[in-house]
Amino acid sequence: MRIGVFDSGVGGLTVLRAIREKYKDADLYYLGDTARVPYGTRSKETVIRYSLECAEFLMSKEVDLLVIACNTASSYATEKLMEELPVPVVGVVEPGVKTALERTRGRVGVIGTRATINSGTYQNYLKQHGVSVISKPCPLFVPLVEEGITEGPVAEIIVEDCLKEFKDKEVDTLILGCTHYPLLKKVISSYLKGIAVIDSSEAVAKEILPFVKDGGEGRTYLNFTDDSQNLPNMIEKIFGRRVSYSVVSEVPKS
Amino acid sequence: MRIGVFDSGVGGLTVLRAIREKYKDADLYYLGDTARVPYGTRSKETVIRYSLECAEFLMSKEVDLLVIACNTASSYATEKLMEELPVPVVGVVEPGVKTALERTRGRVGVIGTRATINSGTYQNYLKQHGVSVISKPCPLFVPLVEEGITEGPVAEIIVEDCLKEFKDKEVDTLILGCTHYPLLKKVISSYLKGIAVIDSSEAVAKEILPFVKDGGEGRTYLNFTDDSQNLPNMIEKIFGRRVSYSVVSEVPKS
Repeated sequence: MRIGVFDSGVGGLTVLRAIREKYKDADLYYLGDTARVPYGTRSKETVIRYSLECAEFLMSKEVDLLVIACNTASSYATEKLMEELPVPVVGVVEPGVKTALERTRGRVGVIGTRATINSGTYQNYLKQHGVSVISKPCPLFVPLVEEGITEGPVAEIIVEDCLKEFKDKEVDTLILGCTHYPLLKKVISSYLKGIAVIDSSEAVAKEILPFVKDGGEGRTYLNFTDDSQNLPNMIEKIFGRRVSYSVVSEVPKS
Repeated sequence: MRIGVFDSGVGGLTVLRAIREKYKDADLYYLGDTARVPYGTRSKETVIRYSLECAEFLMSKEVDLLVIACNTASSYATEKLMEELPVPVVGVVEPGVKTALERTRGRVGVIGTRATINSGTYQNYLKQHGVSVISKPCPLFVPLVEEGITEGPVAEIIVEDCLKEFKDKEVDTLILGCTHYPLLKKVISSYLKGIAVIDSSEAVAKEILPFVKDGGEGRTYLNFTDDSQNLPNMIEKIFGRRVSYSVVSEVPKS
């Protein structure tokens, strides 16, 4: 069994980690598009094009299942990838929504990139289930995380500045609608005391259960479209140890 | 006379503005690679590849002169572009250094993206002229500017956090080694009172004088590789009025 996972950068590794923990035998192929991160400030057309190119790279590794571990790509490109690919495609939005619905008493907040929030995907799912939704883009969180600034005064003021309205509006549950944001969860939770903070990585790992077959050697292959000084540290921060990776300078052009 | 100018995003428009003001008749072709901004976190190889693709797009417009209005691309790709292109190529590093040397009493600070600072280009030029140099990457400044956050408390704390050591180290002149940073100049100057803050846009406009011939209709063509909600506002902030632009979804692949 081979599972392909892609993200705009390093954030999707939080999803990969959850999948790794739940499915010990599966072979996992990750692609982080660090040469073009962030996706969340790009237009819908560009996000779809980049997503198709990432999917094509993973299909060349003969994966049996594709996980879109990026909320922006999930919001804009899930439908297109389902149409185009011969394997099941699972995004991160629906699993996150399900978890939030189990927890909330009726008022859910959603934060994400500008593209994810503008797409309205989270808001539509949640409203269909009768909960009220307050959403907000937090465009500086991705560069913060990609720079490895996940705690300390700069992270704190940016988090507070972006999230203060969720305090006032009595939200009881907050969805981290971006796979980078779990790396800021400590700062976010400490600011929003008493609010359930949902990251969808474990929910995604549960969601793919029906598609996961036995077999595999439990290998993990990390690929990135560009190298950076921070990459080894970020990988270590997420996995708790150094993991080697490959740089693939050119993904296929769709 | 046609002048081509490229940058990773909107920052290079500060250079375009200075060129526009000095050469009223020249036709100006701008390319902002907003589909892949920022360049400053990418590797040298990737920056060179992206720069070649941008140059190829501008050469297809038959420009007579190419200005690299991005410090990261200037630091890593000037030599390569000079080799490959049949027209003169001018980067932003040398003009900025010349201006700083006219101003300083001996201690110059340089800030830029991680890639620009790591390249050592500014530091080498300055040291050759016998001044002491203190340099520091400020990786959050580009996303701040691209998000339009150029004043207020978030901009202030990020600027202060990054620049505090320039206060302690008695630098007399600070080079803004990134074309995005002039948009934060007010916040930077107000924090670093008494330090001369150099932005290289006017210096670049002077530097190209020997290559500029008469002729042209004074037109300005703005092209970006991706659209975004902020783009019209950023253009208005820089030019003081709305300017229309084209989105070119695919630059040539080198």
